Amino acid sequence: LRIDVHGHVSAPAHLWSIRAGLLAARGTHGRPALPKQLSVEGLKEFLNAGGGGGPGGPHLKLMDQHRTDVQLISPRPYQMMHSEKPAWMVRWWTELCNDVVHNECRAFPDRFIGIAGLPQAAGEPLDAAVAELERAVTKLGFRGALLNPDPHENNGTVPPSLGERYWYPLYEKACELDVPLHIHSCGSHSVREPYSMNFIREETTAVLGLVHSDVFRDFPRLKIVISHGGGAIPYQFGRFQAMSARSGGPLFSEQLRNIYFDTCLYSQEAIELLIKTVGVDNCLFGSECPGTGTAVDPQTGRDYDDVAHYIDKIGFLSDADKDQVLWKNAARLFNLSAVQPRL
Amino acid sequence: LRIDVHGHVSAPAHLWSIRAGLLAARGTHGRPALPKQLSVEGLKEFLNAGGGGGPGGPHLKLMDQHRTDVQLISPRPYQMMHSEKPAWMVRWWTELCNDVVHNECRAFPDRFIGIAGLPQAAGEPLDAAVAELERAVTKLGFRGALLNPDPHENNGTVPPSLGERYWYPLYEKACELDVPLHIHSCGSHSVREPYSMNFIREETTAVLGLVHSDVFRDFPRLKIVISHGGGAIPYQFGRFQAMSARSGGPLFSEQLRNIYFDTCLYSQEAIELLIKTVGVDNCLFGSECPGTGTAVDPQTGRDYDDVAHYIDKIGFLSDADKDQVLWKNAARLFNLSAVQPRL
Repeated sequence: LRIDVHGHVSAPAHLWSIRAGLLAARGTHGRPALPKQLSVEGLKEFLNAGGGGGPGGPHLKLMDQHRTDVQLISPRPYQMMHSEKPAWMVRWWTELCNDVVHNECRAFPDRFIGIAGLPQAAGEPLDAAVAELERAVTKLGFRGALLNPDPHENNGTVPPSLGERYWYPLYEKACELDVPLHIHSCGSHSVREPYSMNFIREETTAVLGLVHSDVFRDFPRLKIVISHGGGAIPYQFGRFQAMSARSGGPLFSEQLRNIYFDTCLYSQEAIELLIKTVGVDNCLFGSECPGTGTAVDPQTGRDYDDVAHYIDKIGFLSDADKDQVLWKNAARLFNLSAVQPRL
Repeated sequence: LRIDVHGHVSAPAHLWSIRAGLLAARGTHGRPALPKQLSVEGLKEFLNAGGGGGPGGPHLKLMDQHRTDVQLISPRPYQMMHSEKPAWMVRWWTELCNDVVHNECRAFPDRFIGIAGLPQAAGEPLDAAVAELERAVTKLGFRGALLNPDPHENNGTVPPSLGERYWYPLYEKACELDVPLHIHSCGSHSVREPYSMNFIREETTAVLGLVHSDVFRDFPRLKIVISHGGGAIPYQFGRFQAMSARSGGPLFSEQLRNIYFDTCLYSQEAIELLIKTVGVDNCLFGSECPGTGTAVDPQTGRDYDDVAHYIDKIGFLSDADKDQVLWKNAARLFNLSAVQPRL
């Protein structure tokens, strides 16, 4: 079995057209309705016809080619626009995106499980995000949420570190609902650091912010997953390990045991380094496919984002280890049997 | 032979006391003079007595333990204060730091070679930096300079990407003098992203800024070295490789051939990934010792920053490959025989 914890929704252009309209009118034209193209039937037709994934698509065909049985899908993070005003527009857009994710899960109930986007309007309290997390899990059957550590979207305003109490209401709700929070930043206003690079920065920052805080003491049951293999953390591991050894506190390697990492990396060496550094128990198969990695490697003829293939090839993992990474850790952490009894 | 391209100056507290005084009076008390503790004789005495390296020291003893023959030393980047005002104070401080580096090189001419800090006062043109690069190379015998890609030191102001023409006067002067520019950011105003993490962010950003620009077309002889193993770049390599494959332009792997990376990473896995990803010809031994990595690994009893030891252990490198990484690439790139004929 292969459960991909890092997927995003595919939808026809009508979804992005709604976003364009919201921004153009700044939400003053009222809450947008879902057109039929974004209904359960509309999405079934779209995906069955080979749609999805922008340049990468078609979504279902890629899942089949990569032998991904189930994918956890969430709104496309770089389109979340948390830093735009007014806050209610951000909330409408997020709720609408979650409804589309929900419809896609209903259209293909054996293939997709929902992960929520949260209406984290920049500079606002987290009440709306907490409420939407509750709605998504209890009403839509979602099994987790993306958390954007920088709702200002790299516009020069420094958000609170993930170790700060600003985030506690969300951590509390995630623990109460027993669902993971998947750290994944969204847009970036900086032309020198576009969103894809800002993902890496924010994930690196997120790990340190959590590790150098009381969060796991205050929320021992909190489940945190870091996207894209943890940004730079596993590669720069020795730097932080040395700092912790010198400080005399717990070693960085011990502190990392509280944190899970997806394998959303597109080279054999990187995935091997990740698993060696953080351990089999803390790695979850994730591919973000279709997405940034959806291109054919001219040397091998394979898709860069056929991530399970890299995992399969790792010599130092037993078959049982591979099962842990490819699906068992995900099934346990996200408690997926709650929505798909076979998992 | 082992030539460490990434070292920083060690000096007694008098150096930092000058910095404190400059900041307290914002430069209005005039240009500070070098006290005798920072003269050639003073530094010789200080280092011979086992000084240096803050928590890490003693500098020379660590070099001997790690069998580092020669180290390229520059001012400590996190102390450069490029974002402070007025600009003339930044210039005075940088020139003074370079004079201290120069004195340390004169005190131990067989062990140290100078690399300049540049007075890159935030928001100012690069004239002062260009002039100081020229002084350092032609008058002090230095063989390169650190370039800080964010003189604003992460204060919310976005600096020009390294691909922008703002940097061209410096690239031009570096080519004219035939010395490398070593990318290494300095301070950080952000409490959620302190300087050590900001190094990683800025190095990652620097590589993409250069690769997605005309810089190497306009300056084919420009030599760029990225610190700390390239931030996140080698680990996230597949992400950028896939993007380049999809765009149909040159592959990211080809674009990286213009760029050199130091091995300033403190785990076996990371150094192996770096060399596998960018190749033997593009890696330079660097340790930043004494510095962030100066601590004993409780598992092995070795210093984390005994970086040459990791390189020595790599099974997939021949002895000739190891010589390339440990000193030959550096001797060639920095043209070190110009100042030490034996190299």
